[in-house]
Amino acid sequence: MKKLINTPESVLADALAGIDAAHPDLKVDHVNRVIYRAEPTRAGKVALISGGGSGHEPLHGGFVGFGMLDAACAGEVFTSPTPDQMQEATKVADSGAGVLHIVKNYTGDVMNFEMAAEMAEAETGVKVASVVVNDDVAVQDSLFTAGRRGVGLTVFLEKIVGAAAEEGQDLAAVTALAHRVNDSGRSMGLALTSCTVPAAGKPTFDLPDDMMEIGVGIHGEPGRHREKLADAASIAKQLVDPILSDMDFTGSPAIVMLNGMGGTPQIELYIMYNEVAKLLEAAGITVARNLVGDYITSLDMAGCSVTILKADEEMLKLWDAPVNTAGLRWGV
Amino acid sequence: MKKLINTPESVLADALAGIDAAHPDLKVDHVNRVIYRAEPTRAGKVALISGGGSGHEPLHGGFVGFGMLDAACAGEVFTSPTPDQMQEATKVADSGAGVLHIVKNYTGDVMNFEMAAEMAEAETGVKVASVVVNDDVAVQDSLFTAGRRGVGLTVFLEKIVGAAAEEGQDLAAVTALAHRVNDSGRSMGLALTSCTVPAAGKPTFDLPDDMMEIGVGIHGEPGRHREKLADAASIAKQLVDPILSDMDFTGSPAIVMLNGMGGTPQIELYIMYNEVAKLLEAAGITVARNLVGDYITSLDMAGCSVTILKADEEMLKLWDAPVNTAGLRWGV
Repeated sequence: MKKLINTPESVLADALAGIDAAHPDLKVDHVNRVIYRAEPTRAGKVALISGGGSGHEPLHGGFVGFGMLDAACAGEVFTSPTPDQMQEATKVADSGAGVLHIVKNYTGDVMNFEMAAEMAEAETGVKVASVVVNDDVAVQDSLFTAGRRGVGLTVFLEKIVGAAAEEGQDLAAVTALAHRVNDSGRSMGLALTSCTVPAAGKPTFDLPDDMMEIGVGIHGEPGRHREKLADAASIAKQLVDPILSDMDFTGSPAIVMLNGMGGTPQIELYIMYNEVAKLLEAAGITVARNLVGDYITSLDMAGCSVTILKADEEMLKLWDAPVNTAGLRWGV
Repeated sequence: MKKLINTPESVLADALAGIDAAHPDLKVDHVNRVIYRAEPTRAGKVALISGGGSGHEPLHGGFVGFGMLDAACAGEVFTSPTPDQMQEATKVADSGAGVLHIVKNYTGDVMNFEMAAEMAEAETGVKVASVVVNDDVAVQDSLFTAGRRGVGLTVFLEKIVGAAAEEGQDLAAVTALAHRVNDSGRSMGLALTSCTVPAAGKPTFDLPDDMMEIGVGIHGEPGRHREKLADAASIAKQLVDPILSDMDFTGSPAIVMLNGMGGTPQIELYIMYNEVAKLLEAAGITVARNLVGDYITSLDMAGCSVTILKADEEMLKLWDAPVNTAGLRWGV
């Protein structure tokens, strides 16, 4: 295992210390492993909280800041944070207008966020709503998940719903919008290589030199099938086709992300984006906005994923609203 | 070789098509392989041009836009662009106030940019100045280079000098500032793995599973020495010590970059940043600004580099000025 770490045990603590040192706009509660805005949530603003296992950076800590999340809790690598962490995040971010929990659909995350919501409501009376993101069309059930997994759409949801909360929408409106975004987007990913969890010290799965895993999960969970490595055009088709056959994206502006899994250089992501853009154009889909880069990663995995959101005018306006986080920044 | 490409021959053309598709603020001359701003350089503004071999993305194309470069020419992977390309970039970007060529110190780039400047001056009368960036303290001479190599400081220089050009400084002032930035910064890098050039199809160099290359170049050129893989704290010391023994960074605000080489995930970059920040604090250096992420990469190489700039108040003000590029964006 070749990694820039001190010890496998200290990976999360050391990374949080680095985030703390690098970003004066953020504060880090190192005991509870909560990243939150240095500037407290203003009165009347709904607070947005997310979190999950580490190893997917910039998700979620990199999306804490103006226009996106108020706080994020970080579990160990590929491990759900505990209800206690989520409760701490809820407490630190709540300003009295309620809290939305943004939860990727993995069994541990869902269960722990539910417990955290109950605990927080019982203890402080905070109103907690939640949305479970489940955009991955690859498989219905998988390791870690009952139902579809939550992947790249989480980034779009945090951005769009974050802007709505920032402009003062109340908890009911913010929650309804979150569900609407979740219902309007789909994702699919692929791996060329496994990732290596530091505590395991070896690749999560074996993938021969000439094979790729179609529909891989962000923890290296199995996808739909394996096949021979192909060219970028064929790979793009294998990602885009299952998304388009799951939902009709014509007739509305689309927001598209070509996401790198952590070990794939930008030059390859642009090659893939080009192929994806051609397929979407051929399918009559208008791409209004796009992201190309590493937004939801799987440690050092080589590969990529595609996320498409069928946006409406409100989502597009909220997408364009100012955002100031480590991972996404414009308009300020 | 596991890469998201169509063919090794089409890597650059396909990536440029992807950049073109992804960024409506940019135009791409696909014949000459020049990326330039969709909005023409306004009259009276000095134009900034850079370029070099591809495979270092976001450098340079990702830094074309308001507040940084006016145009960038892209060579084949790890290969200098030709004088013709540079001349085209110079022509497309010049608005009459002159052009600054920002050149990383590699023999081919330096020679070709010199020829391009002569050709452009002779043909159109444009005034061309240039700065050769040579910040890498690792080795004095290397493959591709006489003297020190130009690496991460290029990003800082493009940002700071770009802001000076944007605010209307003339060619002499912009050029003087560029030399001042180059004189005030140093870098050092390290590789855990080789990169693989698509046309070669195999790793550029062999590095055993338990070894790292200290002082590696951005094309995989040999560094100072190899040694056993160590922990993040020791690695940080091996990068920071040579920089600090080359230049005194105390007494001025520093801008620091912890740069990923392309194959290293963000969680490791933050772990490294934490170690670097501790060393700089212990050395009495005040870090005023920082970047943590992939800014000048080496295809899929795992590793990182550290760049430190001893800034003055003007550089800091220009650093904070608005920038709107694919790779760096704030204030707009």
